[in-house]
Parts: sequence; C-alpha cells; structure tokens
Amino acid sequence: MDKVGVWLIGARGSVATAATAGAAAIKAGVASSQGCVTESPGFPGQLVPFAGLISGGHDISEISLRKRAEQLSRAGVIPPDLPGLIASELDAADAEIRPGHVPGHGGQDTAAARLIADITGFRARHRLDRVVVVNVSSTEQPAAPRPEFDRLADLEERLATGDDVLPPSSLYAYAAFQAGCGYVEFTPSTGPILPALAELAALREVPYAGRDGKTGETLIKSALAPMFADRALRVRSWSGLNLLGGGDGATLADPAARSSKELSKDQVVAGVLGEPVEGQTHIDYVQDLGEWKTAWDHVTFEGFLGVPMTLQFTWQGCDSALAAPLVLDLARLVARAHEKGRHGVLPELGYFFKNPLGTHEHALAAQYARLRAFAEELS
Amino acid sequence: MDKVGVWLIGARGSVATAATAGAAAIKAGVASSQGCVTESPGFPGQLVPFAGLISGGHDISEISLRKRAEQLSRAGVIPPDLPGLIASELDAADAEIRPGHVPGHGGQDTAAARLIADITGFRARHRLDRVVVVNVSSTEQPAAPRPEFDRLADLEERLATGDDVLPPSSLYAYAAFQAGCGYVEFTPSTGPILPALAELAALREVPYAGRDGKTGETLIKSALAPMFADRALRVRSWSGLNLLGGGDGATLADPAARSSKELSKDQVVAGVLGEPVEGQTHIDYVQDLGEWKTAWDHVTFEGFLGVPMTLQFTWQGCDSALAAPLVLDLARLVARAHEKGRHGVLPELGYFFKNPLGTHEHALAAQYARLRAFAEELS
Amino acid sequence: MDKVGVWLIGARGSVATAATAGAAAIKAGVASSQGCVTESPGFPGQLVPFAGLISGGHDISEISLRKRAEQLSRAGVIPPDLPGLIASELDAADAEIRPGHVPGHGGQDTAAARLIADITGFRARHRLDRVVVVNVSSTEQPAAPRPEFDRLADLEERLATGDDVLPPSSLYAYAAFQAGCGYVEFTPSTGPILPALAELAALREVPYAGRDGKTGETLIKSALAPMFADRALRVRSWSGLNLLGGGDGATLADPAARSSKELSKDQVVAGVLGEPVEGQTHIDYVQDLGEWKTAWDHVTFEGFLGVPMTLQFTWQGCDSALAAPLVLDLARLVARAHEKGRHGVLPELGYFFKNPLGTHEHALAAQYARLRAFAEELS
Amino acid sequence: MDKVGVWLIGARGSVATAATAGAAAIKAGVASSQGCVTESPGFPGQLVPFAGLISGGHDISEISLRKRAEQLSRAGVIPPDLPGLIASELDAADAEIRPGHVPGHGGQDTAAARLIADITGFRARHRLDRVVVVNVSSTEQPAAPRPEFDRLADLEERLATGDDVLPPSSLYAYAAFQAGCGYVEFTPSTGPILPALAELAALREVPYAGRDGKTGETLIKSALAPMFADRALRVRSWSGLNLLGGGDGATLADPAARSSKELSKDQVVAGVLGEPVEGQTHIDYVQDLGEWKTAWDHVTFEGFLGVPMTLQFTWQGCDSALAAPLVLDLARLVARAHEKGRHGVLPELGYFFKNPLGTHEHALAAQYARLRAFAEELS
Repeated sequence: MDKVGVWLIGARGSVATAATAGAAAIKAGVASSQGCVTESPGFPGQLVPFAGLISGGHDISEISLRKRAEQLSRAGVIPPDLPGLIASELDAADAEIRPGHVPGHGGQDTAAARLIADITGFRARHRLDRVVVVNVSSTEQPAAPRPEFDRLADLEERLATGDDVLPPSSLYAYAAFQAGCGYVEFTPSTGPILPALAELAALREVPYAGRDGKTGETLIKSALAPMFADRALRVRSWSGLNLLGGGDGATLADPAARSSKELSKDQVVAGVLGEPVEGQTHIDYVQDLGEWKTAWDHVTFEGFLGVPMTLQFTWQGCDSALAAPLVLDLARLVARAHEKGRHGVLPELGYFFKNPLGTHEHALAAQYARLRAFAEELS
Repeated sequence: MDKVGVWLIGARGSVATAATAGAAAIKAGVASSQGCVTESPGFPGQLVPFAGLISGGHDISEISLRKRAEQLSRAGVIPPDLPGLIASELDAADAEIRPGHVPGHGGQDTAAARLIADITGFRARHRLDRVVVVNVSSTEQPAAPRPEFDRLADLEERLATGDDVLPPSSLYAYAAFQAGCGYVEFTPSTGPILPALAELAALREVPYAGRDGKTGETLIKSALAPMFADRALRVRSWSGLNLLGGGDGATLADPAARSSKELSKDQVVAGVLGEPVEGQTHIDYVQDLGEWKTAWDHVTFEGFLGVPMTLQFTWQGCDSALAAPLVLDLARLVARAHEKGRHGVLPELGYFFKNPLGTHEHALAAQYARLRAFAEELS
Repeated sequence: MDKVGVWLIGARGSVATAATAGAAAIKAGVASSQGCVTESPGFPGQLVPFAGLISGGHDISEISLRKRAEQLSRAGVIPPDLPGLIASELDAADAEIRPGHVPGHGGQDTAAARLIADITGFRARHRLDRVVVVNVSSTEQPAAPRPEFDRLADLEERLATGDDVLPPSSLYAYAAFQAGCGYVEFTPSTGPILPALAELAALREVPYAGRDGKTGETLIKSALAPMFADRALRVRSWSGLNLLGGGDGATLADPAARSSKELSKDQVVAGVLGEPVEGQTHIDYVQDLGEWKTAWDHVTFEGFLGVPMTLQFTWQGCDSALAAPLVLDLARLVARAHEKGRHGVLPELGYFFKNPLGTHEHALAAQYARLRAFAEELS
Repeated sequence: MDKVGVWLIGARGSVATAATAGAAAIKAGVASSQGCVTESPGFPGQLVPFAGLISGGHDISEISLRKRAEQLSRAGVIPPDLPGLIASELDAADAEIRPGHVPGHGGQDTAAARLIADITGFRARHRLDRVVVVNVSSTEQPAAPRPEFDRLADLEERLATGDDVLPPSSLYAYAAFQAGCGYVEFTPSTGPILPALAELAALREVPYAGRDGKTGETLIKSALAPMFADRALRVRSWSGLNLLGGGDGATLADPAARSSKELSKDQVVAGVLGEPVEGQTHIDYVQDLGEWKTAWDHVTFEGFLGVPMTLQFTWQGCDSALAAPLVLDLARLVARAHEKGRHGVLPELGYFFKNPLGTHEHALAAQYARLRAFAEELS
C-alpha cells in the first residue's frame, strides 16, 4: 500500500488542520509522531507510511489552511514556527479542498453526485490506492428516524425525488460508500449508522468505524470505570462538567447538538459497570478557553462494608491536538482493513470512540487489546 | 478446602480489625462482600467460603478487638451497629491473638520458636487445612543488607546465636514458612524478600506474595499510566502529595519508614512507561484526617506536536476499608494456591501490590487479566 | 433582653433540626458554639444568651424532632450521642411546632390568621421579649409579579377575598410582620421582598433580613472575587457545578426551584467585579451525597500583559451544619435590632446572604466589617 | 515627581524582564496596565506615571534583555510580538545593567562602593528624582545571625576589614540605603531586616518594604483564612504542594533556599487564625512546568457541632507575570513615600508580601484597606 488519501469532512476545522499540518510535519521530519497510537513503539502492523498520506476534503469555510494553521499556532495547538515550515504542503492540501454541501442549496441527489465526483477525482488525480473519508465537522443534532433509513432501495428512491432526507453526516457517508471509500465518523453525528447505509457499505464492500472520538474526559472514564468494577468497588454516582472553548464548544452551546454529545459521553460508565449510575455530564461553552477544554469529574463509590469514598479528576487538554493523531491512526487502519478485504463496521476500532459501533466494550484496556490483535491480523 | 486460618501480624490494627470484623459480618449475613475482588460477579475459581475463615494473629497491643471495632465504627470505617452484631465473633478472634514479638525482648531464635508454636497451635486447635500469615503491621524502615540474608544455612547459624538479625517482618515470614504456612507481605516492609527466606519457602513448599497493598493513589496510577502509554501521550512529570491520618500516617511521619513507602509508590509510573519520569511523591501525616487519606496527583504530558496538557486527580479514601477485603482475597487465594501445590513467590497476585514480587508488570488491567487466569487455573 | 423565640418555618427540616439541636446542646454545655459568628472571640455586642433562646415553628412534616435528630446523627451532621443527651429539649421544641400551611387548603386570609395566632400564642406562653421568624423551608420557584404586591391596601383587599395570592414564604413573612415579629428569609424564596410587605414592616415597626444563606460555594466566591478585583487581575470566566444531596438537593432537582437558587448564586461575581462574567453555575441533585454538598468552581483570569491563568476550588461541606449556626446568629441579631428600635430591611446583615437585601455589597470582608460595626452599634 | 528609577537586583531574571518589558509596553501604549494594583480604577493617589519610570539594575547574567524577552515570549509570559515592538526600550534598559557582585570576588567593602556608584551614576545620568532598588534575584538560604548585624557601627567596622559579612541581598540593601534610595525586598532573602540596616535607613532617611512578594498560593491563603476565622469555622489542617518550574523553581530545589520560602509561606494561616495549624507546605521543582506554577492546597475544618469539612484549591499561575506588576506598584509607592518624607519600614505595603515587615496583619482585605489609606495619604 503506497498512497492513501485522507478526505476530511470539515477540512478547515481545527482537528482537520492539526491533522493535516501534523502529517506534513512528520513527513517533513520536523515533528515526531507522538500521539499516534499506530506509531508507538512495539505497535504491530505495517500501515501506509506518513509519506504516503495525501490530504483533501470538503468544507463550507473558505479560510485557507495556511491561515487556519497560523490561528492554531497562536492558540498554542501547533508550534509557532510550524506553519512557515510546511507552507507549501498546506497550500497543496488547500488546493484539494472542495466546497462542502450547504443544506438547502440544491437537492441531496445532486449534492451526492458532486461529492462523489470530488472524492473520485481526488483519488484519480493522485493515483491513490485507497481513500478514507473522515468526518471531523461540527456536531449535528440527533436525527429523527424516517422509514426510508431502513432500506437502501427506499432511501435511494427518496433521494431521487431531490428531497433532503439524510442528515449532512449521513450524506457524506453515503457519498463515501458510493465512491468506494472507507468512512470514519469521528463526531457524535448520525453518519453511517443507518441500516440503509450499512446495506450500501456491504454492497460496495467498504469498511467504516465510529462514533465520536474519545479524546478526553471519556478516555479517563474508560480507564477508571474498569478499575472500580474489577476491584468490586461500587460506583454510586458519577457527575461531570466539561468546559469547552473553540469551534466545538460554540456548536455545543446549541442544546440540540449538545444532546448528541452528552448521549455519547454517558454510555461509558454504565456500559462498563453494567448498571445505570446516578449523575449527569454537563457541557458548557466557555469562549475564553479557546482551543482548550477542562473537564472535572466527581465520583462517589462504596468500599468494604459500605464505606463511602470519592475520586475527582480534572483534565485540561487541547481537543484538536488529542483528536488529530487519532484521525491519522484511523485513516491508516481503515485503509489497511479495506485493502485486506474487510468491509462493514469495524468493532475492533472501538478503542478510539466514545460510542463504538459494533461492540458494547467500553473498558479501555480491553479495547486496546482488541485493537492490537486487529493490527496484528492486518499485517 | 473447608477451613482456612488467617493469621494477622498486627491483628489489632485498623486493617486487621476491619478484615476480621468484615469477614464475621459477611459470615453472619449482615454485610455484603463488596470490595472483595474474589467475590465479584463472574470472578472465576472456587475458594474457601467466608464461613470457613478463622482469624487469629500476633500483636503487641492489648486493646481488645471489640474496643478496636468500636473505635473504627466511630471513625466511620465500619457501620455503627456492626460491633454489637458480631461481638461474640470479635471475642473469639480476640482469644486467638498472641503477643507480638517486641524487638530486644529475648533473642530471635527463642522468639521464632514461640511464634511458630503460636501458629501451629492455632492450626491444630481449629483443625485448619491451611493457615495464611498476612503482615498488616506498621511499616518498618528499609533493612540494611547483611551477608547472612543470602543463604538459609548462614541465617539459621546466626539466629542460633540468639542475635537479632532479621527485621521484624522477616522474622514473621520465617516463622510462617517454618510453620508450613503461606505468607503475604501487605506492607512495604522487608518480609519474605531475603534470598535465605526464598530458600526456606522452597524447602517448606509454601507460597508467598507481596509487597505493599495497592489501595489508593497507586491504584489510580496503575490504571492511568497505561492509558498515557497506549495513547502515545508522553508523560513529562508526575507529582503527588499524600495526606494520611491514622496509625499508618503516624508511622510514616518517621522519615525512615516513609522512605520504604515512597520507594514502593514511585515504581509504578516508571515501570509502566518504561522511562524515568520527573516528579516526587510526598507523604504527610495529618492527624486530623483520622482513618482517611487524601491524595492529590498532578501529571503533565505532551500530545501531538508537543502540546502540553495536564491531568489532576484527588482520591479520598479510607485505607483500612480498602485494604481489608484485599487481605481476605489474598488469604483465600494463597491458601488455594498452597493446596494446589504452588510454592515460592506468586507473581500472579501482583494486581494487589504496589511493588509486586516476581514480576515487573505494573499496568492494572494486565495484572487483573493475569489474576483471573490464575484464579481459573486454581479451580 | 432575657428571652427570645426562634420560630422556624420548616421546623423539622435539616437546617432547623440542626439549629434547634445545636442551641440545646450549647445551652446544656455539651457542645461549643463553634460556627456561630456572633460568639467568636472578640465579636462585639451583647446578644441574648443561648439559655434565653426558645424554639418553635411551622412544618407540614409530622416526623418528630427527636427522630429527625437521630437521622441527622446517622448522617454525620450532629454527633452520635447528641440526640440522647438533649432528648427532652427536642421534645419540648417539638411540642411548639404547629402544622404549616398547605397551599390550597383554605384561603390565605384564614391561614394567615391561624399562623399569626400560632406565633403570638408561642410568644405569650413563654413570655418572650421578642420572636424572630426564620424561613428555612424548601426553596420555592420565583413568583410571578402581581399588581397587588405593590401596595399593602391592595394586598389585604385581595387576601380578604380568600384567594391564594402570596407565595408561601411571603405568607409567612406577612404573618410574622402582623404578629409584630422580625423575619429572616434564609432561602432564595420571595419572602418579604414585596413592596406591600415592606410597607407592612414599616407599619408594624419590625426589622427583616435576607435572602438565601451564604454557606458554601458562594461564600468562597465572595472571599475570592475581591482578591481578583483588588489585584487588578481580570476574571474572564467563572463556571461551577454544585452537587447536592439531601432535602434541598431534591427540591432543587425541580428546574423552577433551581432557577431561584441559580439567580442568587450568580450575582456575587458580577456584583464584586462590576461587570458580567462568562460562565454558568449548575446545580445537580445527587442523592448519594446525603446531607453533603460538593461544589467545584473553575475560574479563568488574565494577569499582566494578558497572561491567562486559572484557579479551581472544591468545597465539600455539610449544608445544614453550615446554615444552622447562622440561623441562630441571625435570630439573635434581628431580635436585638428590633429591641433597639430598628425596623425595615437590615442591610448590615448582608454578610450572611447570597442575595443581600438593601445593599449591593457582595465582598465578604466589607460585609463582615459592616456586620461588626452594626453589632457595636447594637450594644 | 517626574522621573523615578527602578533599579532591579537580578535585572535579567524573569520577573525583572517581565517588569521592564511590561513598563515599556504600557509606556508605548501597546499593553494595558492590567495587574498593576495602583492603576486599577478608583485606586487613590498620584504616583509617577509609567512614562517617568526608567529601568536599570545589577545582574551576574550577561544574556541580553532582548534575548530574555524572547525567551519569555516563547514561554507565553509575554505576548509573542511584544519583544519586537519594544526592542529599543529593552536595549536601553540593557545598557543600564551593571555586573552583580559575585560573592568571594573581592571584599564586600569594595563591592559596596562599586554598587553604590552604579546606582548613583544611574540616578545622575537620567536626572532621576528618586531611585528605588528592588531585589528580584534568586532566593538565598536563611542567614546565620552574627553579632555585627545588630549595630551599624559594628557592621561597618567589620566591612572595613574586607570580610564577607553580609548575605548578598543585605549587601544590596546596604548599598541602596547608602545611595539614598528606597529598597524593596521582593524575595524571602534577608535583605534589609538586620537591625544595623534599619539604623542605616533611619540615618539616610530612606524607606523600605518587604519581604517575599505574595503572588499565588499565599495570596489565596490570605484571602481564605480570614473567611474561616470570621465565620468561626475552625481550621484543623492546611497542607499544600507547590510545583514550580523556571528559575525560581531551580533555586528552590536547593533545600536551604527552599527553607527561606517555606518559612515565609507558613506564617499566613497561623498569623490570621491566631493559633498554629497542623500541616506542611511542600515546594517541588518540576522543570517541565517552565515559567508556570501549580499549587494545590487542602484544608480541613470543623463547623457547627464539630462536623468535619474540606476545601481544596488548585492555582495555576505564571509567577513572573504575577510578580512583575507588583514590582512596578512597589517602586512607584516607595518612591512617593520617599518623596513625602517617609523613612524606615513601610508596614502599609504588607498587602504585597508573604512576610510583611513591620506588621503582623496577614488578612488580605485588611492589608488592602491599609494600602488604600496609605495611598490616600500620599496624595
């Protein structure tokens, strides 16, 4: 596998910019691959080298990647001198960004055709072995169910009328599958989870994975909840407050979008412990935090003879910097799985997600063991 | 396996009292086995039932177990009405506590003979299949090396002179092994780690495990450090402050004893990450905390492109309530291993310890997986 | 001033029970007055001694004070042996608790007459110099404005029709004023703040104070916000999550009641800093916390040359134990002010409240200085 | 008062560089005076304008201020574009930095003469009305007492022998006083506190203030401890861990220097509460924190009826950015006090210090009130 395309939905967002800039920096030898799971010492498998990754994507924003990289640099997400060092790579990636579909501007059938052509054009132009489409755009609100989501034939019939049927993320997943590409749903949006799209992925023999990259508070939850379970310490409540700045924070200031995120976040603890646990997880937009995020969690639990105890943690992270290397990991893993003939959902990639598709395993170490085994298989 | 003796060194301390009271409460059906790893749903293996556990031990204190249980009850470590409900069981256990050896009062050869007789008498009196000796007494300072620690013959020759040769914990381990009993070093003290004692354990075909029960801050460290490692997030510093009240806190106010504890605690992070990490772990005695302990840890780490981030946690736990069920778990597991013919060090029990003997594995989930596999084998 | 009555609305609630039990314990010499501001060393003024305080009140609950004290004792709010030591005092106070008014059961005019008679009967029976009515019942939702709230004549005309006009807390304030008693609004409820009631307080020459006892997170805010202001450090955001168990937590699980509380809490920071500050304060009911409360606050601020920094704090307190001594302080201060001829709102008591009536001062040290000066004046 | 010199001991350190760069930025109109107490809205008094401040100083380092400013800029202490905008001002200040005295290189009598000449030369060159010497160099270890510290005559007699008598900070204070300048001891070092130097300050009629700028954890302590005292909540323990990077952290890695700092820090709580309080304050050097500092404090306290509660806080600050504006505040205030004829110690400036000279007041609000009254007087 020599060359793989990474087609980013939301290609000018913070996560995509950090991923594109980071891949360029690693290629150029001016940054290490720290933060990339698939590059950590001893990680099994032979994936496409960074030198073989080519970026492109869709976005409705027109701010250039170079400018976005400078913004991220001022915000401390990428090193101050990096945008200058990789300016030509950023411009090259920029030239491969096509306008995103704006809902309401033309029917979804026309839009899908155009999106598919954008992706296949990119693949042809760069003679890529595979392209993986990764959605890193803004979180959508949960989609209301519709009858045509259940069967591909019904969905296509409805699309053919020119109606707006699919949530935007699902339209991109549809286009990706039709273009013969793997797909990663890195946001909590609907994306590929509709039965009609699963049918399409099977038909086109393409793999997909998701949803909602596990980058901060939920990562810690999935490391700590198994500790309580295995130690037979009963968790009595788990409460949390997430303070987010940045673009994602602003999107999540909308209660509808936030509900998608909160649903994702709340599955881990109950999933690991096997019972519902008291407590809520709040998400607040705090503009002053910029690209940073702070989460505080408070856990009450009972030990021997019912003694009450508590654990608190505070996580202060840069979401884009946490997400970007995982986007590269996922693109490389999905491309390789595609090459190896895997199609449909990839539950082995649950390690990367808050709401892993195809599996109910939320315990971090178990997810990691499964990921490693998968990487072994792929070699 | 019908009946197993749990012989506690420091039998009137907080941990031993909580373990004895808890086992009695579970037997009596007035408490659940919550906090006991070996009793959690789905845990494999058939261990001695709680009804088959009989307690005894050594202590230099003469305060009755019933009084100690009332003290713990006032401190919130055991439920207020429990001491009354199990008064007769506490008195029975109290009747099986013999005076501990006071260093300097008679030679260690005489002392060892008496300690052995105490243990074998207990075993005979109750017709016990096995006895497991568990050290839960105060932390000693690290022992200076001596030439006679290396070979059993030299050690016994020197003991025969009546000299005080062994640190107290090692004297108890010696007595345990000579009495044909398994031994658990639940403190950071020297205990069974001398080569001469390993030789003796092999000779007597008895198993042992240790050291230093992992009950709080270090437990969290061993859950979180693998998360950083697997995610390729580089830990840059890990600092901590432990505030301890209670008996253990007072002991650890002595810098020499504290150094034993700090050495135990500091191995986990470097052990998991495979490199030394900047930062210290402090232990302060804060009398006002009573039986409780608060630990704050501060971790700095680097993500993709070197972005600096932090994680903090605060653990507020009751040490005795965290340790007591593990004492029961260990006694049951070691008894079973002994029955199955295992002798020497049991690295499979590393899950329970800050400084696991016979293994360098510090990652919690890996330790747990090994423990489960061991429990399977023992069935 | 020999004898003062403390008439508690919500007399069987946690705060009232702790206040009544505490006053009895101090009288009986089995507890110190720790936590009472007016008893701290060097605090000026001569207030009624604890021996002169007599308790009574209204409540719709019928659980006896002795039983409530035992519940609080099990929850760790009052010492285990205290209920037994003051059983007869609790029974005496219990005998002075009359049924609270249940909205909808009879008109408010009849209710008011009965409430007034309850209070004046109590005063006469015990030959009390003064009675102070203190509302420590559950938080109400904010009251919608009504035209008859503006003038006493209109209010009384409307009440005469038998209609339910006033929010419950305001009905109690009305009864207190008509009975010639001072009133303290210790909750965020409407209570005495209606212009018609201010008119009545002037007419009856009675003093009052409120609202919403400042016992935890807001107390800290009012200590820290002035620090930022005086140091010219610009606060950029202030976010918080309050986790509450207990009766108050359950009440506040109702969004309408919670909104009263959140409005109270959010005034302090903007009030001290003189500008609105980004960030929200959440209140969650976490049943598992029982009588305890945990609040986490996260503050971002800017220093010299715009450098961003942060402060976080976690407060773990027992709300009833924090509120109870302030109830006693307020009853004693209001009684004394009444005796000295003060009537209308008492802004000098703003130190005790989240939302102080009659003043915009929220800085804690300034409030305390004003309280001390007031206490001097009253001597 | 038109022109005031700020003569910084440690003129190339982080604090001095930030102060010099900041003053230049404010003068140039490219930064606000945020963080300067004396410039906050409504602060009384007429101090020398920023345009009238001229910087110089002593340092043993030879790295240029421009380079140091760039380092601070990369570390996020000053804005990225600032060093470029004020390059000429930095160069001008750099030209006024003279070599610091290196202990052991020549006798202290010769050294003092040279230091005095440096300062008076600076004053003359710029026709300054006043010069204030501010020590912001590395913390020294506590000085052992010597008989010649008690009387000026004995001190000068001893100095005349060429011996090294004074700790470095005291040598600078000696030189400042002899040069007729006010002095600020911003570090925990000995500085001006020797009786012989008090005598000299009286003789030369110069004012001084100190010690140890209160910029972080201790600032919060002095805001919170009065809250506990006034609320009659008994503090039972106060423990803390300070993690410091940067130059100060490295200095404080030396236990002797650290002991000076810990002594300063530990006075506030006991000072405010009027009784010793259990608990220690640790200082750790954590290189990875760079110019940043994180402090965690844990407080246990008792409320009504002895209920135990806790408060924790975590402070994440940039020490230089917190200290620099206070250095400018102090220089301006001391210059004005000098002009107004004040000499000797200035207890009114205790607000700025962990260990305020001439006063035992540690409560922050009381210190601030005294500062404001002082500023009024000076107008």
